[in-house]
Amino acid sequence: MTDPIALTADLIRCPSVTPEEGGALVLLQDVLSQAGFDCTRVDRAGISNLFARWGAKGHARSFGFNGHTDVVPVGDEAAWTTPPFGAEIREGFMYGRGATDMKSGVAAFAAAAVDFVRDTPPDGAIILTITGDEEADALHGTTALLDHMDQCGERMSVCLVGEPTCPNRMGEMMKIGRRGSMTAWFTVTGVQGHSAYPHRAKNPLPAMARLMDRLASHELDRGSDHFDASTLAVVAIDTGNSATNVIPAQCSGTVNIRFNDLHSGASLSDWLQAQARDVAAAFGVDVDVRIKISGESFLTPPGPLSELVAKSVAAETGVTPEMSTTGGTSDARFVKDHCPVVEFGLVGKTMHQVDECVEVAQIEQLKAVYTRILTDYFS
Amino acid sequence: MTDPIALTADLIRCPSVTPEEGGALVLLQDVLSQAGFDCTRVDRAGISNLFARWGAKGHARSFGFNGHTDVVPVGDEAAWTTPPFGAEIREGFMYGRGATDMKSGVAAFAAAAVDFVRDTPPDGAIILTITGDEEADALHGTTALLDHMDQCGERMSVCLVGEPTCPNRMGEMMKIGRRGSMTAWFTVTGVQGHSAYPHRAKNPLPAMARLMDRLASHELDRGSDHFDASTLAVVAIDTGNSATNVIPAQCSGTVNIRFNDLHSGASLSDWLQAQARDVAAAFGVDVDVRIKISGESFLTPPGPLSELVAKSVAAETGVTPEMSTTGGTSDARFVKDHCPVVEFGLVGKTMHQVDECVEVAQIEQLKAVYTRILTDYFS
Repeated sequence: MTDPIALTADLIRCPSVTPEEGGALVLLQDVLSQAGFDCTRVDRAGISNLFARWGAKGHARSFGFNGHTDVVPVGDEAAWTTPPFGAEIREGFMYGRGATDMKSGVAAFAAAAVDFVRDTPPDGAIILTITGDEEADALHGTTALLDHMDQCGERMSVCLVGEPTCPNRMGEMMKIGRRGSMTAWFTVTGVQGHSAYPHRAKNPLPAMARLMDRLASHELDRGSDHFDASTLAVVAIDTGNSATNVIPAQCSGTVNIRFNDLHSGASLSDWLQAQARDVAAAFGVDVDVRIKISGESFLTPPGPLSELVAKSVAAETGVTPEMSTTGGTSDARFVKDHCPVVEFGLVGKTMHQVDECVEVAQIEQLKAVYTRILTDYFS
Repeated sequence: MTDPIALTADLIRCPSVTPEEGGALVLLQDVLSQAGFDCTRVDRAGISNLFARWGAKGHARSFGFNGHTDVVPVGDEAAWTTPPFGAEIREGFMYGRGATDMKSGVAAFAAAAVDFVRDTPPDGAIILTITGDEEADALHGTTALLDHMDQCGERMSVCLVGEPTCPNRMGEMMKIGRRGSMTAWFTVTGVQGHSAYPHRAKNPLPAMARLMDRLASHELDRGSDHFDASTLAVVAIDTGNSATNVIPAQCSGTVNIRFNDLHSGASLSDWLQAQARDVAAAFGVDVDVRIKISGESFLTPPGPLSELVAKSVAAETGVTPEMSTTGGTSDARFVKDHCPVVEFGLVGKTMHQVDECVEVAQIEQLKAVYTRILTDYFS
């Protein structure tokens, strides 16, 4: 039996802060190769990724797992009560950067896969896509792995991302989609002048205030079947003018939008541009908009894959998971263009924090869930 | 005859950048004492001021002049084409810091007064109040002189401030009042949070946008008999948050108001506070307001004093001056609590600029205007 706890500890001891490989993928390649997996390092632009397949290439029943071994920086190392790459166990919890996000998840699915193919070799394939670039820009991580698979005719039939998905209690939540995320930067330009003679100037600030008020008070939607309502947050308005007798020439404003499946990055961009044009015309100022879409919303509607995962989670943890679309973003946003994808992992409470830790028992439990998923999928 | 051009040049050569006396008041005290004026230096908190009276103290017909000898800094000295304290004359213009604002004005009324009391000693008094603190905070300038006069039983029946009042052409404008000026600083405080979960935060920015939009779109008035419409300029909104996934806890906004005689600093403060309270309640945030009233609006309604000045200006320049209340602020805002006050001086186009200069002929003309005013007043 492959011990997922020892494997988690070994992975935590690899200092794989993005973009450092830190030995984590080398270690996994070792374990998986010995278990009969075909392994390929898919490195791109200084980022390391690992593709591993057991079974025939292109098999119609190919179960995929996706995860990442890179971690966020440790932050204030002095504030940690154990070494951040030490993997020390204290009162049933293992401490270290990546303990929950998500070296335990990777260890659990790798251990489950290795034991499964050894004990009950399935008629099908198991594919592991493990990236070293999830925490940063994710430009050369899972996308590089998917590009590689496209080029080589590799294909997953379905995919499970092993990110921590449970807010508080093991088993309570899985993800069947994610909201999209985008940021818009507005720059309003008018004409500088003296506060005593506003008619000789063109103040950009009232236009910015009107624009931000309009955007913030607009109800994007009231949620959809599987999603909460989309949200828009004004995160900054700035001028940098300290002279009270001067009307500034320019100011900037920034909004961040998390949107559900009723919108797309393009539809929201159009809406933002139209609002900017309206305000520009009404106030006689220039409004420039720059937009970055970090990810589109997506949904794998409840169906065979999500049912399979939910049933396995319930059987192993005694809790039926909610099928949620809440939270930030994950690499599932890339995988969804390749095959149906859902996410399930353990409790993520301490992710990115000082003294990040995982309940050791949850790692065993997670391996058991993943094993049951494989068993049911191939039965 | 006292030469106002030579006196202007002598004054420009005194480097009297606020709060430096620079020799300017010493020079004037010399000239005035020799002409029979009782002179008193009224110095307070490191600021020098000069009080000078010819004639009997407390006389019912006491004509006052007010002006300042302090000047703003030269700015980029390398950009000047003549030494800023050189008083060089070139093609009919005298160059130097204070050439228009307002050493020429002080020289003109001092020369007029000296010659007038010598040639046609009036049945009355002439009082000169000359301050060294007009360009900065004006806390210890004209107010110190007025305090001194109150304490000593000194009184002006009317007062003429010699600030430059003509936008382009000598004689075209005098001031019979000024708008008030005030600044309000707003701080909106909410609760910080993650952009993906705005319901868990309390974003101060939509409240700030709403507040600034409301203030900027409100029509304070449409002007009054002698005043333009009051204006409100939003001069800054700032957050200082560069993280697009963070909703900030706090933001600040600043507005500057120039108000006419339909308002007071107090009435506008009440209005601003009420707007802040409204928005605070509507958005569930905290809105703090700090207000500074730099000066109340005031008006010396058209009457004997303004008619006297207008008639004299017309006679000497051939132009009937508009009785205006436009522009920034001046020490007339203090004098108006002491006696009726109006303002007349030469063309102020280059004030505070590099290569500040005055048309030499205008200095002579200004002295002639002031002389005629004295003649008419005492006739």
